[in-house]
Amino acid sequence: MTPRQARGPLRVAMIGYGFMGAAHSVGWRQAPHVFDLPEDVEMAVLVGRNADAVAQAAAHWGWAESATDWREVIARDDIDIVDIVTPGDSHAEIAIAALDAGKHVLCEKPLANSVEEAEAMAAAAERAARGGAKAMVGFTYRRVPAVTFLRDLIAEGVVGRVQQVRAAYRQDWLVDPEMPLAWRLQKEHAGSGALGDIGAHIIDMTQFVTGETVDAVSGTLETIVKQRPLLGSGSGLTGTAAEGYGDVTVDDAALFTGRLSGGALVSFEATRFATGRKNALTIEVSGDKGALAFDLEDLNSLRFYDRTAPADRQGFTKILVTEAQHPYVAAWWPPGHMLGYEHGFTHQVVDLVAAIHDGTDPHPSFDEGLSVQRVLSAVEASAAKDSSWVRVGADVLEVGR
Amino acid sequence: MTPRQARGPLRVAMIGYGFMGAAHSVGWRQAPHVFDLPEDVEMAVLVGRNADAVAQAAAHWGWAESATDWREVIARDDIDIVDIVTPGDSHAEIAIAALDAGKHVLCEKPLANSVEEAEAMAAAAERAARGGAKAMVGFTYRRVPAVTFLRDLIAEGVVGRVQQVRAAYRQDWLVDPEMPLAWRLQKEHAGSGALGDIGAHIIDMTQFVTGETVDAVSGTLETIVKQRPLLGSGSGLTGTAAEGYGDVTVDDAALFTGRLSGGALVSFEATRFATGRKNALTIEVSGDKGALAFDLEDLNSLRFYDRTAPADRQGFTKILVTEAQHPYVAAWWPPGHMLGYEHGFTHQVVDLVAAIHDGTDPHPSFDEGLSVQRVLSAVEASAAKDSSWVRVGADVLEVGR
Amino acid sequence: MTPRQARGPLRVAMIGYGFMGAAHSVGWRQAPHVFDLPEDVEMAVLVGRNADAVAQAAAHWGWAESATDWREVIARDDIDIVDIVTPGDSHAEIAIAALDAGKHVLCEKPLANSVEEAEAMAAAAERAARGGAKAMVGFTYRRVPAVTFLRDLIAEGVVGRVQQVRAAYRQDWLVDPEMPLAWRLQKEHAGSGALGDIGAHIIDMTQFVTGETVDAVSGTLETIVKQRPLLGSGSGLTGTAAEGYGDVTVDDAALFTGRLSGGALVSFEATRFATGRKNALTIEVSGDKGALAFDLEDLNSLRFYDRTAPADRQGFTKILVTEAQHPYVAAWWPPGHMLGYEHGFTHQVVDLVAAIHDGTDPHPSFDEGLSVQRVLSAVEASAAKDSSWVRVGADVLEVGR
Amino acid sequence: MTPRQARGPLRVAMIGYGFMGAAHSVGWRQAPHVFDLPEDVEMAVLVGRNADAVAQAAAHWGWAESATDWREVIARDDIDIVDIVTPGDSHAEIAIAALDAGKHVLCEKPLANSVEEAEAMAAAAERAARGGAKAMVGFTYRRVPAVTFLRDLIAEGVVGRVQQVRAAYRQDWLVDPEMPLAWRLQKEHAGSGALGDIGAHIIDMTQFVTGETVDAVSGTLETIVKQRPLLGSGSGLTGTAAEGYGDVTVDDAALFTGRLSGGALVSFEATRFATGRKNALTIEVSGDKGALAFDLEDLNSLRFYDRTAPADRQGFTKILVTEAQHPYVAAWWPPGHMLGYEHGFTHQVVDLVAAIHDGTDPHPSFDEGLSVQRVLSAVEASAAKDSSWVRVGADVLEVGR
Repeated sequence: MTPRQARGPLRVAMIGYGFMGAAHSVGWRQAPHVFDLPEDVEMAVLVGRNADAVAQAAAHWGWAESATDWREVIARDDIDIVDIVTPGDSHAEIAIAALDAGKHVLCEKPLANSVEEAEAMAAAAERAARGGAKAMVGFTYRRVPAVTFLRDLIAEGVVGRVQQVRAAYRQDWLVDPEMPLAWRLQKEHAGSGALGDIGAHIIDMTQFVTGETVDAVSGTLETIVKQRPLLGSGSGLTGTAAEGYGDVTVDDAALFTGRLSGGALVSFEATRFATGRKNALTIEVSGDKGALAFDLEDLNSLRFYDRTAPADRQGFTKILVTEAQHPYVAAWWPPGHMLGYEHGFTHQVVDLVAAIHDGTDPHPSFDEGLSVQRVLSAVEASAAKDSSWVRVGADVLEVGR
Repeated sequence: MTPRQARGPLRVAMIGYGFMGAAHSVGWRQAPHVFDLPEDVEMAVLVGRNADAVAQAAAHWGWAESATDWREVIARDDIDIVDIVTPGDSHAEIAIAALDAGKHVLCEKPLANSVEEAEAMAAAAERAARGGAKAMVGFTYRRVPAVTFLRDLIAEGVVGRVQQVRAAYRQDWLVDPEMPLAWRLQKEHAGSGALGDIGAHIIDMTQFVTGETVDAVSGTLETIVKQRPLLGSGSGLTGTAAEGYGDVTVDDAALFTGRLSGGALVSFEATRFATGRKNALTIEVSGDKGALAFDLEDLNSLRFYDRTAPADRQGFTKILVTEAQHPYVAAWWPPGHMLGYEHGFTHQVVDLVAAIHDGTDPHPSFDEGLSVQRVLSAVEASAAKDSSWVRVGADVLEVGR
Repeated sequence: MTPRQARGPLRVAMIGYGFMGAAHSVGWRQAPHVFDLPEDVEMAVLVGRNADAVAQAAAHWGWAESATDWREVIARDDIDIVDIVTPGDSHAEIAIAALDAGKHVLCEKPLANSVEEAEAMAAAAERAARGGAKAMVGFTYRRVPAVTFLRDLIAEGVVGRVQQVRAAYRQDWLVDPEMPLAWRLQKEHAGSGALGDIGAHIIDMTQFVTGETVDAVSGTLETIVKQRPLLGSGSGLTGTAAEGYGDVTVDDAALFTGRLSGGALVSFEATRFATGRKNALTIEVSGDKGALAFDLEDLNSLRFYDRTAPADRQGFTKILVTEAQHPYVAAWWPPGHMLGYEHGFTHQVVDLVAAIHDGTDPHPSFDEGLSVQRVLSAVEASAAKDSSWVRVGADVLEVGR
Repeated sequence: MTPRQARGPLRVAMIGYGFMGAAHSVGWRQAPHVFDLPEDVEMAVLVGRNADAVAQAAAHWGWAESATDWREVIARDDIDIVDIVTPGDSHAEIAIAALDAGKHVLCEKPLANSVEEAEAMAAAAERAARGGAKAMVGFTYRRVPAVTFLRDLIAEGVVGRVQQVRAAYRQDWLVDPEMPLAWRLQKEHAGSGALGDIGAHIIDMTQFVTGETVDAVSGTLETIVKQRPLLGSGSGLTGTAAEGYGDVTVDDAALFTGRLSGGALVSFEATRFATGRKNALTIEVSGDKGALAFDLEDLNSLRFYDRTAPADRQGFTKILVTEAQHPYVAAWWPPGHMLGYEHGFTHQVVDLVAAIHDGTDPHPSFDEGLSVQRVLSAVEASAAKDSSWVRVGADVLEVGR
């Protein structure tokens, strides 16, 4: 590991400016003022296709400049880090170009829309690493303090041998059948539905906290509402409806069972039809010595069950992960003062800058992002094969991807 | 302690047959068939003033006979235990007569409607004890397994020195202003309102679990709805309304602070105006080594906070008090199988029979019941003195009691 | 429906006296004294193979007589109801004999150890019904007030169209690898493991509350601890260990996805390896108008989410199912007074006696029990076919069952 | 109301740089980039006594300059807003000077260390208002979206007539008896202990959400650990201990009952001895139509009980206050994405800037801050008078304040 030769602040270009752009901007804005970063960072350029819109976003979020051509920006000498928050179908092209240009890259999840793209990106990251460029995928939920701490506790052995895992990501914003047919619900644009978007999070989190890989899967994909109102003008999920209905071509619920490398079974659920559940990512790891559970809708705490405690005193302990001893917390507030959703984006910046400075490898790596992509692909393969088991990496499914 | 000379089953006469009669009947019916009692018990006679009604209740609840004159029943040679579930204003007379007749007595809480009565009862219990008769007050919440276990944990020292206690009993059945003016809301019949009825429970529980006494109090009594529809015909809380309104002459909320013998402050709340809280008796004991909390609406569990655990792992542990190691539980079901409200009445029978058999003193004793009565009286005295502090036992208040 | 011609009390013979015998005895003992039954019932005979042991159990639980030959008991003229709580492998023989003898039969779940047996039992129930005999399966969780109320709310339409269901039954008593190899862990005796024992409950509950059937399944069965200490002398789960280890031949976790007749997907999990979860039966039904959730470890409440409420006021309402308006509750205690595990067994008696008296058909019927058996069998068939989908009723799997 | 004549960005000077300085800095940094402010703001000057330390803090938090003399800074023409986050004993002097210099003032809570100071400050605010300067007190918990929404719901009438309130602020950082005798525990520096620091929050919140005032109080102040290790060198709560012990001269727990202007009783508890409770500000408002409850340790939600719902469907609804319809939320993230502690400081900036721009009066006003101060003073007066009732504003207690 070679520490970076300081040569001024790390200058960042962010490509894309949707919802994730807002969240990443908070991270870049807050990290230097809350944490003691070993390098200065500058929010240098925001890049988007529509010159007016991107200029307005840059001004609002605090980026020094805006630009419309990401290739030009990547070619600039004064840019050190490229942060990619565009939709998934452009990740591969931009990330590979940036890495080949010697830039450090932070790429939003999921890494890509296909295993092939993800493989190319991982290869690019490997090439670039030789020159010292870092590549990191944006699974920010890893950096919720309770999640990081949960991982640490498992690594320390408090749950013993992992014997069963439950991981779910439940939302409900598609329950309304009049929600229009946005691009996210069309396979040609989005690649996948609930599986790729939120299923990716629970696959990554499972692999992250257990330190194991999902090696095989059996799954079912479901489109509960099969036709939706066509979107007229406008974009995103809120445009005005045109006349008529069109087919939803991605899944809106994915149920699958995975086998971990250590042998344990994992039950996964990713759905947008869990009425009343807004952003309910939950995970529970059961081991022979204990159990740990986390719920993103209660993100400042985790539950720990210690089977080695006296029999009459066992139970799930609700640990408020707001103590100075907990990951990331000391830089924030006193005990019992809550953190929120976007703090993970600040921690992501902290960790990336530290890795660049120290010359270490940040996680999640592109290889880890690729690994998630392979599980997603195996789930699709299994779903296409009547839910029979598919070994991750062994599927050759190419159904329209 | 002199074990009882067995001479056949313990034959029980229960005097009164309202709501508490139903609950006590479950206790007498279940205890011999669920637990291994050292003596047989028989539900011999149910006593009430209305011959038809009491005969019907006896048949329904499984009492062998019914009777209308409690004095005659107490005089019978074949009655061993007298169980008193009448309204509080008759407790003293019946209990003293029964004890003087050499019967074991179980008396519902509160022990009496005044300190004077309670003193006379405690004196009777002391006299009767010389002849081997037992006297016990029906604070059954002591016998919820989680409460007994909470007490055991405190006695073991897990919370260390008790530094603060919060105890509340919250109901909401008086929120409706059209709830009629039943006898329970009239001082001449009920003696007291929320204070005496449900406040008594939290005073007893506080003294029970901490092993300390409430030595001084400062309190406020409040009648939130001051007039209610007059009750026409009918009885209880559900009779039909007559014309007009009458004054509510008891408190419907009592807020008071107590000082424990060990020095800690206790905040008490007894109310029937806690909208949405149905039977929410809660207690939390804070010590220098830990804390314990209980909620009757979640009665199969307690929360334990261990300050001696590693700093990053502290939190409230929800202990499901359904393990065979927990008090009373082994006789019931496997772990995770819940108990309910009336189980405490069964445990009460178990403990009373064991005390009679073993010749030991059951708790809560009449002295403990008297002690609660003195606290209630001190609260009333403080409320009448602009909430200034009153030493328990030192008040000479006689306002219409 | 022909009301029963009263001819004295309904006299009950219970066959078997393990854990379920204790629970059923509470039901028979309590029902007549808590509810107003339209017929009297008598706990007439307890039947078991070991004369001394069954006599002792009969005395303890309050059965008038004991006997060792169930055939003789079934043949008696003075027995009206046969209650079967033996292990599953004897259900079919006893229940068919009892029904053919014209007795009303209450049979513990699961109905049988195989589809073939269950079919024969359902046929016997149909024959017997012509003579007025009633047959009922003991899925008592249907009679937890919150579960009955949840079903009523769904029937009323509050969740709208059911779009997804999650049902899990999680215990942890097999996490300890030194738990010995009891008969329940051997296929030749138990037929099935977690699937048949606790999986049956969640299948029945799903079908009960939705009013739909599980029509197809894809599933995985898992034996997490594959060898356990041989059991020396003793029985049950607590005998002393012999030397050496033997193979566990049933599943200890079952993960499966089901398709309801109305189209919705259900994710099922039955496991004894959910560290820290003692008896955690949970179900959540998501519909286009709302959602309902229940947790057996919090059995006096349910959660209701109403999507038709104003957007800023939606949320899960925790309904305490202890109001007089709720099913079964009026006979018990005031609002906020909790019921426990065994109350369902009392309600079961109430409903069976009412059905006998009124000449109506009690639920769950043997056909419903058979339906659960067919789903269990389909899950095993799917697990044996690499988790591919199997239509319920269409499997021809005969692997050693 | 006169809108401000724009003349460039609003330039802010913040005086003080402890824990509150960090939180306020986040507010000033985030507000312009997350919300659409009607005026630009600039973090112009950070003021502190130690030149090096304040320069370092300014650089870290993003203030353009630093300075050591707050009088000079207040005198500068290019400063529009003075934000005061110093300890309470300097609030009056700075705030009055700033207001008299025509600056807008944001002053941390509690407004002052005495009623006299607070009165002078309120008078200064009134004078300054004539010239258009705004004055605001930093009770930021008002701006947690769930709290603002709770207030809105009460104003809308959903709880009906307020009949009882419970408000508590529980922490546990003084449970450790070896925590040293910092300035916060000495009356001459801190003025008050738990009462003034965290009790002030629950008084303000009660008045804010009910729209009523606390008119009379009866209270008890308690110092649970009466002596603590002397602090050697260092400051704050973490300096190194000198030899010996000194007296704690402020309360560490305050229990008091208040009477609202509408007649309802409020039970208040402010304590630093609630073992296991870290930052547990809770409030529950009970009315004749419903109830609302909030817990700061679960700050993204509130509980609403609707007594007007059908009897079998009532219960506490957990409303996740993360919908675009909820106060402040639309500027942040999608539903179910959590906010944290410091978001209230951002909302405070948003509201202050809006008030300055629109020429309206921001809340809480200095009069509201004074009102809290008067309640605090009345509690101290009551505690000194054996807990008898004291009318707010009528106390003449001058015990060493």
